[in-house]
Amino acid sequence: MAELKNDRLLRALLRQPVDATPVWMMRQAGRYLPEYRASRTKAGDFMGLCTNPEAACEVTMQPLDRYPSLDAAILFSDILTIPDAMGLGLYFETGEGPKFRKTVRNAADVQALKVINTAKDLTYVTDAVSTIRRELNGRVPLIGFSGSPWTLATYMIEGGSSKDHRRCKAMAFNQPEVMHELLSVLADSVIDYLNAQILAGAQAVQIFDTWGGALSYAAYQEFSLAYMQRIVNGLIKEHEGRRVPVILFTKGGGQWLELMANTGCDALGLDWTTEIGSARQRVGSQVALQGNMDPTMLYASPDRIRQEVSSILAGYGSGAGHIFNLGHGITPEVDPAHAGAFIESVHELSAKYHTK
Amino acid sequence: MAELKNDRLLRALLRQPVDATPVWMMRQAGRYLPEYRASRTKAGDFMGLCTNPEAACEVTMQPLDRYPSLDAAILFSDILTIPDAMGLGLYFETGEGPKFRKTVRNAADVQALKVINTAKDLTYVTDAVSTIRRELNGRVPLIGFSGSPWTLATYMIEGGSSKDHRRCKAMAFNQPEVMHELLSVLADSVIDYLNAQILAGAQAVQIFDTWGGALSYAAYQEFSLAYMQRIVNGLIKEHEGRRVPVILFTKGGGQWLELMANTGCDALGLDWTTEIGSARQRVGSQVALQGNMDPTMLYASPDRIRQEVSSILAGYGSGAGHIFNLGHGITPEVDPAHAGAFIESVHELSAKYHTK
Repeated sequence: MAELKNDRLLRALLRQPVDATPVWMMRQAGRYLPEYRASRTKAGDFMGLCTNPEAACEVTMQPLDRYPSLDAAILFSDILTIPDAMGLGLYFETGEGPKFRKTVRNAADVQALKVINTAKDLTYVTDAVSTIRRELNGRVPLIGFSGSPWTLATYMIEGGSSKDHRRCKAMAFNQPEVMHELLSVLADSVIDYLNAQILAGAQAVQIFDTWGGALSYAAYQEFSLAYMQRIVNGLIKEHEGRRVPVILFTKGGGQWLELMANTGCDALGLDWTTEIGSARQRVGSQVALQGNMDPTMLYASPDRIRQEVSSILAGYGSGAGHIFNLGHGITPEVDPAHAGAFIESVHELSAKYHTK
Repeated sequence: MAELKNDRLLRALLRQPVDATPVWMMRQAGRYLPEYRASRTKAGDFMGLCTNPEAACEVTMQPLDRYPSLDAAILFSDILTIPDAMGLGLYFETGEGPKFRKTVRNAADVQALKVINTAKDLTYVTDAVSTIRRELNGRVPLIGFSGSPWTLATYMIEGGSSKDHRRCKAMAFNQPEVMHELLSVLADSVIDYLNAQILAGAQAVQIFDTWGGALSYAAYQEFSLAYMQRIVNGLIKEHEGRRVPVILFTKGGGQWLELMANTGCDALGLDWTTEIGSARQRVGSQVALQGNMDPTMLYASPDRIRQEVSSILAGYGSGAGHIFNLGHGITPEVDPAHAGAFIESVHELSAKYHTK
């Protein structure tokens, strides 16, 4: 593999000194980019992009080509590849988000899930990882990712997106043993999936716990955090002679940072409701912090965006351990020039906080 | 006015001793009740219920008649009555939530808003309050309510519900002076509105800040909390010889309880993501705490519901200052028997935490 030319992200994730705060954006390869929309049209649909390693590589590279200051690439894929491979039949209806042809509602449904092996059943993902690594040629590190077991379970049980996760929570509350069996199968699959991404070339991994924040404190620990803990324990710690940092991101999890930091992960993703300065006071000696501008701020003027970046940088303060990002994915209607203003301002305004 | 026979709610809101933890449910007069659905059909639609004081009184009383252990009535109304009276034209489309015919997008739109006077422009609300008080005849206290200025503004700017409040936030970020003008007008209207409810007979008031939790820490203080502070300052403190307690409820505001408690309100509403024991440690010497069972728990079995009630009661611990509630409104598909199990279990299981 080519030597890594820009290792700001990996250094910051391990709280090592850097010359400027690294920056990337969740969903940076996405619909706000006209070049992405063209690739998607060419591929036919979203899953067509995900399942074709060359196409996934092409869209992964697009934001890097447009914004030379980006410090990381993230694998272009969907969070629901695992349940799809388990036999649930993922499909997308325009404007409605992801859906499954089959759902999981009871113990028999859990038993019927195919036990998957990433190397055999999700080759398109590991092929995309190695294709992207080759194409990156050491330019920036590549982040791999997975949904958290709880987040995957919500879609598998509801059959798609849901406002209140009623069916999923009812299973957790009424049939906890069935829910634990499902989460256990998912946690093992996620370990295998992320380790396969690491072996194929992912240099850091993020676990997206998009729906952990919909749980109570007790239910979060029992149904989401416990399984992320199992994943952190089961991941390959080092590859290609470097530590492979793990980022946990529970959207809406700002009240539980201490619990998350205690899993032994390397970094926490923060959404924008958490003040990054107080998050650093709470857990900054244990983990790096990633985030956390409100993605909606990208609808503001470039001047206002710069002001917000400045304020978040000041909130974190001096020294290593901050990776700049949005507090959630960038949305389709954002003007790409505003995303550019965001990315450029991070390097420019952060240099003074670093002495390397 | 008839003397109050059950003052548990008012006492608990002021952290005075009670014999059992009082309980009520947000949206307790609602679609999960067949008698409510019948009244609504009779009234034609939802606004037909809100604008007819006799009908509003009828549905307000329904949960009290079904569940004799409920310790409070809450005015049946909509949170968007104020913007409607300001001239925006509220209407409801089936399955789509509230909508406005006109929206507020710039300074001229704010200027064009009708300056309202509750006594003249929202008589149906104060008439409903006095009708309900007469009908209650001292059985339990009546809670009045309003949306918070920020929450009202989100609907007025977006024209209805919204996933990410993009337009509203863009106005806050790009035209803060226009947003502050709008919030200022709304805060004054809410003060007038809640004071009119108090004078008509509301014995406690709750401010529903449903969307404050969508803001960053800084933006929450600037655009939501500052205006709730102004409202707390402007409310009538005492009526009918009793203090009129004020409850602030910011959904998703668990990280900001200290700020909310410092407004001088009497109680904070908690959603279910906050652990009530740690909330009590943080702000329990300043304010009472209301909440906070996940409303989705009502889809679990009555036994599981009792177990959850028991765990929340234990989390709060001994002594006054807890009002049991859900962490958000009860949803239409809940079995009324499960709501009953919830309500009954609160009195039964809480007696041991009180020594009065």
